Amino acid sequence: MADFFKILATQQDCKARAGVIKLDNLQINTPFFMPVGTQGAVKAIDHKTIKRIGFEVILSNAYHLYLRPGLEVLTEFGGLHNFMNWDGGILTDSGGYQIYSLKELRKLTDDGVHFSSHIDGSKHFLTPEKVIDIQRIIGSDFMMILDECLDYPSDFQAAKRAADLSFNWAERSINYFRATQNDYKKQFIFAICQGGMFPELRTEYISKIINLDFDSFAIGGLSVGEPAEMMYEIVDISTNFLPYNKLRYLMGVGTPENILEAIDLGIDMFDCVLPTRNARNGQLFTTNGKINIRNAKYKFSKEPIDEALDSEISQYYTLGYLRHLFLSKEILALQIATHQNLAFYHWLLKTAREKILDGSYRQWKNYILNKLNNFIE
Amino acid sequence: MADFFKILATQQDCKARAGVIKLDNLQINTPFFMPVGTQGAVKAIDHKTIKRIGFEVILSNAYHLYLRPGLEVLTEFGGLHNFMNWDGGILTDSGGYQIYSLKELRKLTDDGVHFSSHIDGSKHFLTPEKVIDIQRIIGSDFMMILDECLDYPSDFQAAKRAADLSFNWAERSINYFRATQNDYKKQFIFAICQGGMFPELRTEYISKIINLDFDSFAIGGLSVGEPAEMMYEIVDISTNFLPYNKLRYLMGVGTPENILEAIDLGIDMFDCVLPTRNARNGQLFTTNGKINIRNAKYKFSKEPIDEALDSEISQYYTLGYLRHLFLSKEILALQIATHQNLAFYHWLLKTAREKILDGSYRQWKNYILNKLNNFIE
Repeated sequence: MADFFKILATQQDCKARAGVIKLDNLQINTPFFMPVGTQGAVKAIDHKTIKRIGFEVILSNAYHLYLRPGLEVLTEFGGLHNFMNWDGGILTDSGGYQIYSLKELRKLTDDGVHFSSHIDGSKHFLTPEKVIDIQRIIGSDFMMILDECLDYPSDFQAAKRAADLSFNWAERSINYFRATQNDYKKQFIFAICQGGMFPELRTEYISKIINLDFDSFAIGGLSVGEPAEMMYEIVDISTNFLPYNKLRYLMGVGTPENILEAIDLGIDMFDCVLPTRNARNGQLFTTNGKINIRNAKYKFSKEPIDEALDSEISQYYTLGYLRHLFLSKEILALQIATHQNLAFYHWLLKTAREKILDGSYRQWKNYILNKLNNFIE
Repeated sequence: MADFFKILATQQDCKARAGVIKLDNLQINTPFFMPVGTQGAVKAIDHKTIKRIGFEVILSNAYHLYLRPGLEVLTEFGGLHNFMNWDGGILTDSGGYQIYSLKELRKLTDDGVHFSSHIDGSKHFLTPEKVIDIQRIIGSDFMMILDECLDYPSDFQAAKRAADLSFNWAERSINYFRATQNDYKKQFIFAICQGGMFPELRTEYISKIINLDFDSFAIGGLSVGEPAEMMYEIVDISTNFLPYNKLRYLMGVGTPENILEAIDLGIDMFDCVLPTRNARNGQLFTTNGKINIRNAKYKFSKEPIDEALDSEISQYYTLGYLRHLFLSKEILALQIATHQNLAFYHWLLKTAREKILDGSYRQWKNYILNKLNNFIE
C-alpha cells in the first residue's frame, strides 16, 4: 500500500522533498498543485488546456457533487472521471468545510452532520461512512474524510473538542474504508490532521492518527485567517511528526509564498482557489510578480502578459488587450487570466521540484520570493 | 479593384454561388459566416480556437471600439489586428445600428448623429466621414458605412426619408473613402442597401448605389422583426439587381434556415450573434437540430454533444455533463456551447459551399433543412 509514493530527493538545508506517485494509469510528480474544480469543472478553462499546462490532478468536492449532479447521475456515468471525460487524477475533498460554512443551515452531532442544501434547501445527513460511500461512487483517486472544521480564532477547549470528534470520525472512516471497496478502481484515503492553532493538540493528534491505516496525511484547519507565521509553525511541527515516507497534503494553501515555504517544510501537495478566483478578479500571477490588470498603466502596454512563462497565452496576448477585455467584461478575459495564473502555478511547482532534485531549493526559494515580492505594481 | 472577389461556381436551379476572396495575406472562401466580436473579442472563445474551427474573418464594431479601448489605444497598437493579435480578416460594422438603438441617447441630423456613450455618458458626434476615419485606424479589411436604421414596421414615407439620408451619406462616404487612405494596408468598403420592406424603394436604392464606386454591397435593414418570407422577398429582389460579380453581404442574419435560404438567393457573407448568444443561453445548434441543453431529458445522457460534427469538443463532452455545467453556472458551459455552435455554423457554410461547387446545393438545402427541423426537442 505504502509504496505508491516514492521520495526521490531531499535537501540538506530544509525539509523539502521531491518524489513521484504511481497510480495504475498515471504518474504524478511531487510536489504538485491541484486546480480546483469544485463542481466537476475548473472555472473558465477546459480539460485539454489543463492537461496541456501540465496538471495531472484536479480537486473536486464530494459535497457539491453529491448535491449536483447527484449520485444517480455519477453512478450512471461510472464516476466523475467518465462524467467529466478527465483522464488525469482526481482528489475529492469531503465537503466538511463547505458544510461547515453553511452556518445556520447545518447541525453537528456526534454521529454526523445535518444540513440543508444551498441549492434547493433539501435536507441531508452525512456521516463519515456516507462520505466514503459518496467518494466510492465518484471514484476519486484520492479521497478525504469528513471532519469538523474550526473557526479561527478558537479557544483551546473548542479546538480540543473538535479534534476529539474529528479523530473519532477518522477512526470510523478508516474502518469503513477498509471494509468496503470500489470495484473498478484503486482509491487512496487521506487522514486530515486537526488541532487548531495549538501545537500540543496538533502533535497529540498526529501521534494518534499515524497509528491508523491511512494511505496519506493532510493538514487541515489552516489558511483560515491566521497569520502566515502561525501557519508555518503548525506545518513545521506537523511535518516533524508525520511519517517521512507518506504523502503530505496541505489543504487550501495558498499564495506562491505560502506554497514555497510549505514545500520548504516538507509538504508534497497543494490546492487553492487563489489562482483561478483571483484571475476572475483581474489579478494575474506572473514570473515578475502580481499584476492588477485593470490598472490604467497597462492601457497602452504592448508587453506580453508574461514574457518569461512558457504557455500558449502568456506571450500571445498583450497586457493592453487583456486590460481592455476586463474593462469590457468579456468572458475571454476570464479565460486568458485563468490560463495565465494556472500556468504560473504549474511553473512554480515544477521549478520547485527541479530545484529540489538538483539540491538548490532553499537558495532558489529565496531568490524567487525576493523577485516576486520586489515587483512594484 | 473589383477582382479581389472571384466566383467559382453557380447553380442551374437557384442563385447560390461559391467563390473566393483574395486579400494580401488571406484567402477567404465564400459563402462564409463571421463570428461576432463586437468589442474586439468573440464571447467565450479564444482566437486560436476560432481559427482552428476554420473561420477566416470576424466581425467587430467601429462604434464600440471607438468608445473602448478608444482611438488612442488602437493607434498606438497599429490597428485592431495587432491589438487583438488576430491574423485573420476583420470586418467592422459602422455602429449605426448600435447608435440607433440608443434611442433617447442619440439625435440624428442631416450631417451625422449626436449620441451619448452607453459606457460613461460622454457626448459624441459621428459623421459618415468620421466613421471612415475610425475604421482607417481600426484597419479593418472590410469597412461599412454609416447609415440610418429604420424601425420595423415603418411606413413608406419614413422608409423613403431614411433611404434618402442613407444614400446621401453613402455618397459622402465613398467620396471621402476614395480621397483618403490607410498607409499600412488595403481596405475595402461596402455600401449598405436600404429601403425598408418596400420592394420599389429597395430597387430604386440599388439602381442608384451601384453607380457609386463601392467595392461590395451589403443588404441592411433586414432581420429586424419582419417575417422570414418578407426578408427573403427583399433579398431576392436585391440580388436580382446587385452586380453579379460583386460580394453580397446580408447583415445580421441569421438562423441556419435564414442563411441557407439567403445563400440560395445569391448571398455570399453573413454575421449574426445567434450562435454565440444562444450558446450562452444553453441552446445548441447540432447536425441533428436545436437542443435546449437544460432539458431534464439530458440528465443521464452519455451521448456526445454532436456525434456527426468534426470539432474538438463535439464528441469530447457528453450532453449529460454539459447540462450539469449549465445548471451549475460554470463558465466552461459557455465555452463548450459557444465552440459547438460556431463549429456548427462553420460546418453549415463550408458544406453549403461544397454543395454549390458540385452543383447540388438546392437538393442538399432541402435535405438538411428538413433534417434540422424534424428534430423534436
